[in-house]
Amino acid sequence: MTYANLDRLNRKLEALSHAQSILSVDEAVNMPLGGGEARGSAMSTLAGMMHEMAASPEVGEWLSKAEGEDLSPEQRAAIAQARIDYINRTCLSADFVTRRVATCMKSEQAWRTMRARGDWKNYLPIFSEVIALVREEASLRADALKLAPYDAMMEQYDPGNRMAWITPVFTDLKLFLKDFLPEALEVQRAKPKARPLKGPFPIASQKSLGETLMRAIGFDFNHGRLDVSHHPFCGGVPSDVRMTTRYRDAEFLSSLMGILHETGHGLYEQGLPKQWSHWSVGAGRGMGVHESQSLFTEMQLSRRASFWTFALPHARKAFGKNLTGWKVADILRHVHNVRRGLIRVDADEVTYPLHVIMRYELEQQLVTGALAPKDVPDAFNAKMKEYVGLKPTNAMKDGPLQDVHWPAGAVGYFPSYTLGAMMAAQQWATIAKKHPRIEQDVAKGNFEKITTWRAQNIWSKASFHTTPELMTQATGEPLDARYFIAHVKQRYGT
Amino acid sequence: MTYANLDRLNRKLEALSHAQSILSVDEAVNMPLGGGEARGSAMSTLAGMMHEMAASPEVGEWLSKAEGEDLSPEQRAAIAQARIDYINRTCLSADFVTRRVATCMKSEQAWRTMRARGDWKNYLPIFSEVIALVREEASLRADALKLAPYDAMMEQYDPGNRMAWITPVFTDLKLFLKDFLPEALEVQRAKPKARPLKGPFPIASQKSLGETLMRAIGFDFNHGRLDVSHHPFCGGVPSDVRMTTRYRDAEFLSSLMGILHETGHGLYEQGLPKQWSHWSVGAGRGMGVHESQSLFTEMQLSRRASFWTFALPHARKAFGKNLTGWKVADILRHVHNVRRGLIRVDADEVTYPLHVIMRYELEQQLVTGALAPKDVPDAFNAKMKEYVGLKPTNAMKDGPLQDVHWPAGAVGYFPSYTLGAMMAAQQWATIAKKHPRIEQDVAKGNFEKITTWRAQNIWSKASFHTTPELMTQATGEPLDARYFIAHVKQRYGT
Repeated sequence: MTYANLDRLNRKLEALSHAQSILSVDEAVNMPLGGGEARGSAMSTLAGMMHEMAASPEVGEWLSKAEGEDLSPEQRAAIAQARIDYINRTCLSADFVTRRVATCMKSEQAWRTMRARGDWKNYLPIFSEVIALVREEASLRADALKLAPYDAMMEQYDPGNRMAWITPVFTDLKLFLKDFLPEALEVQRAKPKARPLKGPFPIASQKSLGETLMRAIGFDFNHGRLDVSHHPFCGGVPSDVRMTTRYRDAEFLSSLMGILHETGHGLYEQGLPKQWSHWSVGAGRGMGVHESQSLFTEMQLSRRASFWTFALPHARKAFGKNLTGWKVADILRHVHNVRRGLIRVDADEVTYPLHVIMRYELEQQLVTGALAPKDVPDAFNAKMKEYVGLKPTNAMKDGPLQDVHWPAGAVGYFPSYTLGAMMAAQQWATIAKKHPRIEQDVAKGNFEKITTWRAQNIWSKASFHTTPELMTQATGEPLDARYFIAHVKQRYGT
Repeated sequence: MTYANLDRLNRKLEALSHAQSILSVDEAVNMPLGGGEARGSAMSTLAGMMHEMAASPEVGEWLSKAEGEDLSPEQRAAIAQARIDYINRTCLSADFVTRRVATCMKSEQAWRTMRARGDWKNYLPIFSEVIALVREEASLRADALKLAPYDAMMEQYDPGNRMAWITPVFTDLKLFLKDFLPEALEVQRAKPKARPLKGPFPIASQKSLGETLMRAIGFDFNHGRLDVSHHPFCGGVPSDVRMTTRYRDAEFLSSLMGILHETGHGLYEQGLPKQWSHWSVGAGRGMGVHESQSLFTEMQLSRRASFWTFALPHARKAFGKNLTGWKVADILRHVHNVRRGLIRVDADEVTYPLHVIMRYELEQQLVTGALAPKDVPDAFNAKMKEYVGLKPTNAMKDGPLQDVHWPAGAVGYFPSYTLGAMMAAQQWATIAKKHPRIEQDVAKGNFEKITTWRAQNIWSKASFHTTPELMTQATGEPLDARYFIAHVKQRYGT
């Protein structure tokens, strides 16, 4: 059985990937600066070894043979997913990969400096090089995968994502949000001003509150921990999930919401099926579904009034008199704040999808060639004006080049964020329909029904289905914008 | 050039070993319990991959070819050391290694349970199995290395160690210490009692004092850090040395001395030549020299009166009124304490070598077959009576099976501890001869001359010479017990 050969190979790859994951966490959390050079070279050597092992022609032959063997349905799914990975891994020539790494590294470094100076003029030639490379890559991937070029780019991050089903959903959402945003702002203006948070909120108390809430919603500290790093992330391996956050003692909500967001990623990882941990079919189903788990936890669950009915007493216990007299409504006023803004990462639930959709639209044009790199700022500004009602002041600072994605050659990633938000809303709606008294449960700190549903319908399914299949099986219908629309209407509307 | 093939292979092995080192540190310092299973399997897979790569017949062929190539003296030394490693790695058959792993694992597990119960009777059959295996291993290694069996066993831990030069040195030392111990105890009895340490000594202050002293004696925190773990160790990689300790707030000296001991290991690692980091010739020179660096730092430097002239003000600053009125002599009374004891790991500078030498003598007889496993307790007890003047109460608890070394099949390791102590004394004597005012420097916290000497004569030499060569080059003469003898006489004698 060549299946067994692949199984053995995957054990080795899993060990190497385990090492990479923990080394990355260690680098962000513990490593002294001077350790960086040797760590960087160890990491790139490990990556090279893994690529050599996983992309060898022998693996292609094993896959072809295994595809003809008598396998269980799970094993067949594992082989099918391994085949897709193999194509994704081998469709770019070594020469192309070298050029891409060199160009994107140069671009990222230039971007960091020039972004700080707002220097679009000098960044443009480099950006043009990156986009030329992206077009080449999209075409290579498209050939190998028999997909449209932009679909082939998305396939790296979210297998199964297709313009054909995303575009109509995004269009519905965009049309709604453009009109809804002024309404939500109006509703908000009519409310009393937010009660200001008065610190200090001691970091030890923030950490312990974070851990209490993590534990309550199901995070298993026997298989994970919470640390501090400059950029919060959820890393590690499913059996040992390493989450990080950062704290400021002037307020506690942004760090806490960050923790709850990463906890959503962590729960997904902890809930993956252990027996498939060494096959890619046993991993999380792409970026969109992963984001649906973090946004479910952060947006659907943890910004809900019922959640704060449960959480506020814990927060009061942690911070004592700093929260004396605070009511659930006071907290919600902070965590339900909507504003027009130019910066994607600072956007709220209502405006965030508009930031994503404009990028999704422009990316496609960049890949087909309908949009030239030099015209990106004008095109972006027009959309920003139309969707959010604001005008960027500088292409690099608050315009289209504010994010590292494009400078790093990562085209096709943006839609995952909003797909995740929509999936999360649809998942919540499914649970709420099945369990009509779920809000009461949440208010009591009983998350069992929610956790059970997510574990059964999302986490344990790993990558055994495409994203659209997974959503349809879990929620009974394909992804539909109306759940997210209903959600924001209810939270932010009249 | 096949040298280049080996260089490339070593880069890969270095990356894997980097991963192993950091994963081990993470396991001891950070990993939640539930992460253990996947970590264990990742670690053993990595070890298997490394063995496969490093012990392949192709490597043997490359070495043979490289031995005939036109190489620099350093490259020749690198190849020579790689050849020794290759022999050590390949002289045991896969079948033998499997048997050894299984037997020693069973033995270690049984030892842990039976030691707690003092159950020598039930442990003896397992111990006999281990010793049979050790004899087989010693004979396989002896054939491959053309060495006497016990020398071949020591070669794993301390290349170049030979009974022919160790035995006379140990004999001198033993004869001296047997007589000196009663004298040292007499001297100590004549002194006033030690002033009791009154805590609490806050852990944050202990850590910060430890770091201050580490930094003063040359530890580079840009390339290392200090953490907490159950068993203190010095791990990581030369560019990122991870030290650990553990704290009790009732007193601070044992943790601090532990930190200074591990700092000695850490300084050695940080001082190794970076350009050779991927070749074994660039690693520390075996266990004896490594222990010489930790014992130099702990025993020669940090238990010295002049060191405490420098360190006491820092300790006072850390612990405030808990050390009010404390003088250097009060600290020395604690860190120069001699007592007869049955437990090796609790022994002091004067009695420790006696514990080691009795094990060294018995190990040789175990390997040759002159001593049967069942007779080990009687033989051990006779030596303990003769050398230390005490009688063990139980073979497992305070007799010959108190240590994990023999149950784990590690025979030939013990001499390294005392060789290290003797080397450290000889190294200090060399420095003191070259720099007659070194005590004044130390009292002022100026460790530059010491660090420079160690860096030039020990650390930067890595494994380019055998241990005896290294000592002769560094100190101008072969290892001689008289330096250690002079040291303990001065510190503990009349």
